[in-house]
Amino acid sequence: MNRKGMVYLVGAGPGDAELLTLRGAALLRQADVVIHDALVNPELLRLAPAQAEIIGRTADRPFSQAELNALLQARAAAGKCVVRLKGGDPFVFGRGGEEVEALAAAHIPFEVVPGVSAVTAVPLAAGIPLTHRTLASTLTVVTGHEDPAKPNQGVDWALLARTPGTKVILMGVERLASIAQTLIGHGQAPDTPVAVTQWGTTGRQRTVEGPLSDIARRVADAGLGRRR
Amino acid sequence: MNRKGMVYLVGAGPGDAELLTLRGAALLRQADVVIHDALVNPELLRLAPAQAEIIGRTADRPFSQAELNALLQARAAAGKCVVRLKGGDPFVFGRGGEEVEALAAAHIPFEVVPGVSAVTAVPLAAGIPLTHRTLASTLTVVTGHEDPAKPNQGVDWALLARTPGTKVILMGVERLASIAQTLIGHGQAPDTPVAVTQWGTTGRQRTVEGPLSDIARRVADAGLGRRR
Repeated sequence: MNRKGMVYLVGAGPGDAELLTLRGAALLRQADVVIHDALVNPELLRLAPAQAEIIGRTADRPFSQAELNALLQARAAAGKCVVRLKGGDPFVFGRGGEEVEALAAAHIPFEVVPGVSAVTAVPLAAGIPLTHRTLASTLTVVTGHEDPAKPNQGVDWALLARTPGTKVILMGVERLASIAQTLIGHGQAPDTPVAVTQWGTTGRQRTVEGPLSDIARRVADAGLGRRR
Repeated sequence: MNRKGMVYLVGAGPGDAELLTLRGAALLRQADVVIHDALVNPELLRLAPAQAEIIGRTADRPFSQAELNALLQARAAAGKCVVRLKGGDPFVFGRGGEEVEALAAAHIPFEVVPGVSAVTAVPLAAGIPLTHRTLASTLTVVTGHEDPAKPNQGVDWALLARTPGTKVILMGVERLASIAQTLIGHGQAPDTPVAVTQWGTTGRQRTVEGPLSDIARRVADAGLGRRR
């Protein structure tokens, strides 16, 4: 049988395996190859056929974006149905856009299947509505991956401190003390209520709440941010 | 059989029925009652059992939030499994937070099941990465439902005009001319690239692109925003 290979970039969702989409599940069930990130819930991999090739891009087995693109290209050229399963938010600070660019540049046929976004699902699972008719009319999402004390920031923290509404900071736990200090330094009220959630939507979900001025200490005391 | 009633607030996703979550589909399949909004894809209702009571909250049959809450409460008290299927973004400008508050106040047991958000899925389906390592580090989401020319805005349009990164304006097509004029008046560059997408993620998806200064005319010419 001569099949045309195809790459499906599938958003795996924020954690809970039941939050995969019907389309994502259907594609996994017919996958010849699954290439997944470290953050992907391992339960999802069981949906793939027993004979499928499962390749994890993990801390033990890291490979570069160039190596990944070469792998996607090779498997697609061999006629395989490739599911590139991306955890977290592939297209919000997840470099999904760069993977799409690489596939397009290499003329690899691909389709993107959006997933449930941690931006909206994790606050929801923690009981926090992101907007409210009378309380919050703007939602701002930034990455907390970079230290705000560094120069040449992608994020304008001074402007963010003055922005009204709800702020979601993804991957912010490691830089939390610096982020809180920077926001307060730029005029954000020290008593601004903050919730920090780890392993959102899964059975391990934990949330620590507190004022901006004290949240870093509370999160450290609770041991959030540790991998296990 | 004496069952405890329960209300499940399920995010239906942005349009494409295949973007429902596995959990949402499982709940629909066991629903006694489904209460859905006008925006929900009718294909999803076919997942419910044939004997399920299907109640649409549509333009033909509008009911108030108080009536809706009374209905949820009555069906849950009768031991029913109630799926409240919400289209669009229930918890991002969709009043999902208010429904949750009402359920909690009425001591109705409920569970919230997040869905794929239009905020992330629709730009993706239109081929637009929301963030990019070198181009956009902040994502701002506002509702375009209110006319920015009105006083006492929930959205700070002056600040939004100065905010860097990608801006997603939900439900903005009716006020598009006013929104564009307001942003330009507050200093947003007139040549800022804009994409307007209708029926995102469905077979009817249409996108019109253009500079901020001309986008309202282009969208009007293309007939976007009409219901059919």
